[in-house]
Amino acid sequence: MTDIFVVVGGDAAGMSAASKAKRDDPDLEVVVFEKGEWVSYGACGLPYYVKGEIQSLEALVSVTPEEFREERDIDLRTGHEVVAIDPDERTVTAESESGSVVQSYDHLLLATGAEAVVPPIDGIDREGVYTLGSMSDGKELREYVARAREGESLQQPDRGPACRYLEDCTGPVGIVGGGYIGLEMAEALAANGFEVHLFQRGDRVLTGFSEATSEAVADHLREQDVVVYLESEVVALEGGEADEDEEKDSAVETVVAADERVDVEMVLVGTGVRPRTDLAEAAGIDLGPTGAVATDAYRETNVPDVYAAGDCAEATHTVTGDPVYVPLALTANRHGRAIGQTVAGQLTEGGAVAGTAAVKAFEVEAARTGILDHDDAREAGFEPVTETIDAKSRAGYYPKGGTVTVTLTADRDSGRVLGASLVSEYGEGAVHRSHAIVGALEAEATVFELENYDLAYAPPFNTTWDPVLVAAKVLAGKLR
Amino acid sequence: MTDIFVVVGGDAAGMSAASKAKRDDPDLEVVVFEKGEWVSYGACGLPYYVKGEIQSLEALVSVTPEEFREERDIDLRTGHEVVAIDPDERTVTAESESGSVVQSYDHLLLATGAEAVVPPIDGIDREGVYTLGSMSDGKELREYVARAREGESLQQPDRGPACRYLEDCTGPVGIVGGGYIGLEMAEALAANGFEVHLFQRGDRVLTGFSEATSEAVADHLREQDVVVYLESEVVALEGGEADEDEEKDSAVETVVAADERVDVEMVLVGTGVRPRTDLAEAAGIDLGPTGAVATDAYRETNVPDVYAAGDCAEATHTVTGDPVYVPLALTANRHGRAIGQTVAGQLTEGGAVAGTAAVKAFEVEAARTGILDHDDAREAGFEPVTETIDAKSRAGYYPKGGTVTVTLTADRDSGRVLGASLVSEYGEGAVHRSHAIVGALEAEATVFELENYDLAYAPPFNTTWDPVLVAAKVLAGKLR
Repeated sequence: MTDIFVVVGGDAAGMSAASKAKRDDPDLEVVVFEKGEWVSYGACGLPYYVKGEIQSLEALVSVTPEEFREERDIDLRTGHEVVAIDPDERTVTAESESGSVVQSYDHLLLATGAEAVVPPIDGIDREGVYTLGSMSDGKELREYVARAREGESLQQPDRGPACRYLEDCTGPVGIVGGGYIGLEMAEALAANGFEVHLFQRGDRVLTGFSEATSEAVADHLREQDVVVYLESEVVALEGGEADEDEEKDSAVETVVAADERVDVEMVLVGTGVRPRTDLAEAAGIDLGPTGAVATDAYRETNVPDVYAAGDCAEATHTVTGDPVYVPLALTANRHGRAIGQTVAGQLTEGGAVAGTAAVKAFEVEAARTGILDHDDAREAGFEPVTETIDAKSRAGYYPKGGTVTVTLTADRDSGRVLGASLVSEYGEGAVHRSHAIVGALEAEATVFELENYDLAYAPPFNTTWDPVLVAAKVLAGKLR
Repeated sequence: MTDIFVVVGGDAAGMSAASKAKRDDPDLEVVVFEKGEWVSYGACGLPYYVKGEIQSLEALVSVTPEEFREERDIDLRTGHEVVAIDPDERTVTAESESGSVVQSYDHLLLATGAEAVVPPIDGIDREGVYTLGSMSDGKELREYVARAREGESLQQPDRGPACRYLEDCTGPVGIVGGGYIGLEMAEALAANGFEVHLFQRGDRVLTGFSEATSEAVADHLREQDVVVYLESEVVALEGGEADEDEEKDSAVETVVAADERVDVEMVLVGTGVRPRTDLAEAAGIDLGPTGAVATDAYRETNVPDVYAAGDCAEATHTVTGDPVYVPLALTANRHGRAIGQTVAGQLTEGGAVAGTAAVKAFEVEAARTGILDHDDAREAGFEPVTETIDAKSRAGYYPKGGTVTVTLTADRDSGRVLGASLVSEYGEGAVHRSHAIVGALEAEATVFELENYDLAYAPPFNTTWDPVLVAAKVLAGKLR
C-alpha cells in the first residue's frame, strides 16, 4: 500500500521535503496543504522587489504550483489551511473555501513557518504601518512606494501635481528595527527617494554580528543619509484622530521614540519573527527551549513520524550542539530536503546550523557565523577571546579594493574557533570569505589550524594572507 | 651568547622568517643575504605592473630594505650572493662587489626561490623574448610595452609616426604557456592593444584546474580576442639572420608551433618555474622526490638547523600527506613565518598545502584546491568520482549575477572531499567560494558533511544553496 506524506506549509522547507520525497520515492503519495496562494517563494527577495530591482512577484517563485502539480506529481492544495492534527488517528483537518477535508498521513511535516513579531507599540495598527513577511506584504509595500513616487502620500494626497523631483514626492519614512529586514528596506526605500529614519532599540544595528560589524554598517548607513537612532525604542506611532465613521485608525504621522519625535509618511516594522506553533501545540507536539518546535537530529518531533522544519522549528547548533532558533532559508531548504529523503526511505540528518547569516545594505556586505556573544560562549562552557582586524580586500598595489574587517572569537583553552563576523564594501568579499570560517566551525578547528588554511590567493582577490587568515594569525598570537 | 639566524634569499619566505624571528626574539642576530637589490616584493603583481594598472615597481614592495634594517633591526645585505654553505663549520660564504664574507650561523634558512623554466625552443634567446619571474623582468616588459605603444616595434622601428591608434602601434605578440603567467600576461598585453596569440602545449589551459574550468577560461580568452592554440607546442622562435657583427641573435619575428606559424613582435614565455637548489645540493642537503629541497613538518632539512621554505622547497600535501612542490606566495609566507617562530624558540609547524591557487584573466576568475587529477588521486589510494555543476552566482531574481561552475572530486568509498575547481565571471566569487572547499579539505570532511555546511546566504551573494553546496549535493547523491 502506498504511503502518504502530508506537508503543512508550502514554502522552502515544505516544498523541499515534498519534492525530494517524491523524487526519491515516486510511489509515495505527497500532499501539501498551503494556506495561501503562493508556494516556494523567495521571501528573502522581497526587499529587492519593493526596491524595484525585481519587476514581478512571480520572479521570486522558484517553482510554480502548476510545476509542482504537473511535473513533480505533488498533490499541492493551495488555499487550504490545516486547522488540526490528530496524531492518534494520523490525520490532519484542512479547511478551504469549499469546506473541510480530513487527510490521513503516514508521515507528516510541519512547515508552518514564522510570522512577523508585532511589537506592543501604541498605534501599530494605523494605516501606513507595514511589515514584510509575506508576498502580500511585499505587494502592499511596492504599491505604497509606487503611489508615493507619484506624489500620492498618505498625509498629503494632493501633493502629486506639485512634486517635480522624486525627493519632493517621497517624504520621510520610519523603520523600526535594525536587523536584516530593516537594513534591506532602508536601502530599498532610500533608492526610491525616501528620507529614511531607522530606529533601533539596542545600542547597535545587526545585534547578532560583532560590534565592529555593527559600527561599520551604521557608519555606512549614515553616509547614505539614513538617520540612525540607537538606543531609541519606539513607544508610539501617532496619527490624526480617526473619523468616527471609520473603523480603522487614521494614518501614521509621527514616530515617537525614547528621545525623538519624527514626522513620517509610513513606517516599516522589522523586529523579527516568531515561529508559528499553534497547530503543533494543539496536537501535543513539544516545543523546545527557544519556543519553536523541538526536533531531533532527523528533525522528527516527539510524536513519531511527525517532523518539523524551517521557520517553525528548532535546529541544532554546530558549535554547542544545543537547540537554537535560527529561521533562515538555507536551514529550511536543507532540513526539508533531509526529511524528504528520510521519508523516502533513506534516514538522513539535516545537519546543524552555525547561525550563519549574510546581509547587504547599500554598498556594504556583512556575514556572521557561530558564537560571537561572550555570554553565550560562556554558557556553552567556553572562555571566549575575540580579536578584530582590518585588512585589505585585495593586494595593496592592486587597483580598487577596500577593507575587510574580521572579528574572530575562539576559546582560550582549546583555541577552538567559535565564531566570526565580517564586513566589507559590497563586492569585496566579506560574505564569501565567511565560508572559510564556516568550514572551520564544522571541523571544530582551532585558530592554530585556521591560520594555516591554504586559502586561495591572487592579487585581485586578497593579500597573500586573506583577511580571514590575518584574523586567525592575530588571535592565535594572543592565545599562544 | 646571541644566536645568529642567517637567511639566504630576501623575498617572501626569507623576510617572513627574518621578521618573525626578530620580533619574537629581539636578542637574536638576524642576517639576510639577498643576491639582488629588491626584497620582499610581490612578484604576483608583476603582470598588473606590465599592464599599467600599477604605476611603479616600488608599489610591489611591501617592506623596503631600509625598513627592514632600521625598523626591524635586521642585518639585510642586498647585492650579496651566497655561494657556499659549510654545514660542519656552520658558515655560509657570500660574495658581493666588495668581496667575499664568511658568516657563521646557528640557524640557517634557504629561501633561494625558483627560476623560470626556459624550454628548449630554438631561438629562445632572441631579442624580444621575455620571461616574467623577477622585478627586472617586469621592468623590461613594461619598457617594451611603453616603446611598442609609441610605435617603436622591434621589427618596424619607424612605424611610430604612422600609428594613430593604439592597435596600429602594437602588433601581434606570442605567449608560450597557458598557466597563471600566460593568462595574466594575455590580459596585460591585450589591455595595451596587442593582438595576443597564446600557445599551449597540452590540450587545455590551466592544466591543474578542472577541464570545465579550463574550457570556461579558454572560451573567455577567445571572447576577448585572444587567439588560443591548444596542443600546439612551440618548436622555434624564428627571426632575421643576425648581423655578423652582433653577438646577440636578431629579434623574434615568428612563432613556429606544431601546425602554426604566427608572425609576432615579441614573445612572453611562461612555462613554469623550477626550484633553485644548487646551493643546497652542493652542501649535501637532500632534495625530495619533486626535485625541490626536502623538509619535515617544521620545514627543516636533513641537515640539523638548516631550514628551507618558499619556492625552493617542498611542502606537505593537505590531502595525501605526501611531499609536493607548489611554489606559491602564501606557502612561502606561512612557512617562513613558522620557521621564524621556531628559530625564536617556539617550535611551529607551518602547515600543509592543498595546492590552492587562484587566477584572474580578463573578466573571469578561477580557483582550484586539493586533488583533481584522477591518476593522482588513485596513486594516493583514493577512488575518485567527479561532478561538475553550473549554478547561479546570485539569486535568480537578483539583478546582475552570472554562473559559477564548480567541479568537485571525492573518494567513492569514504565520500571524502579530495579537491575542487571553480570558475565564474570576475566578481561573482569563484575564488572566495573556494574557501569553503579548503575548509573541507583541512577537516578531511566528506561530501555528506560538506553538503550540510551552513554557508552564508542572501540574494545578492548566492542562491539559497551556494554553488559549492549544489556541487556537494549532486556529488553526494552520486555516492549514496
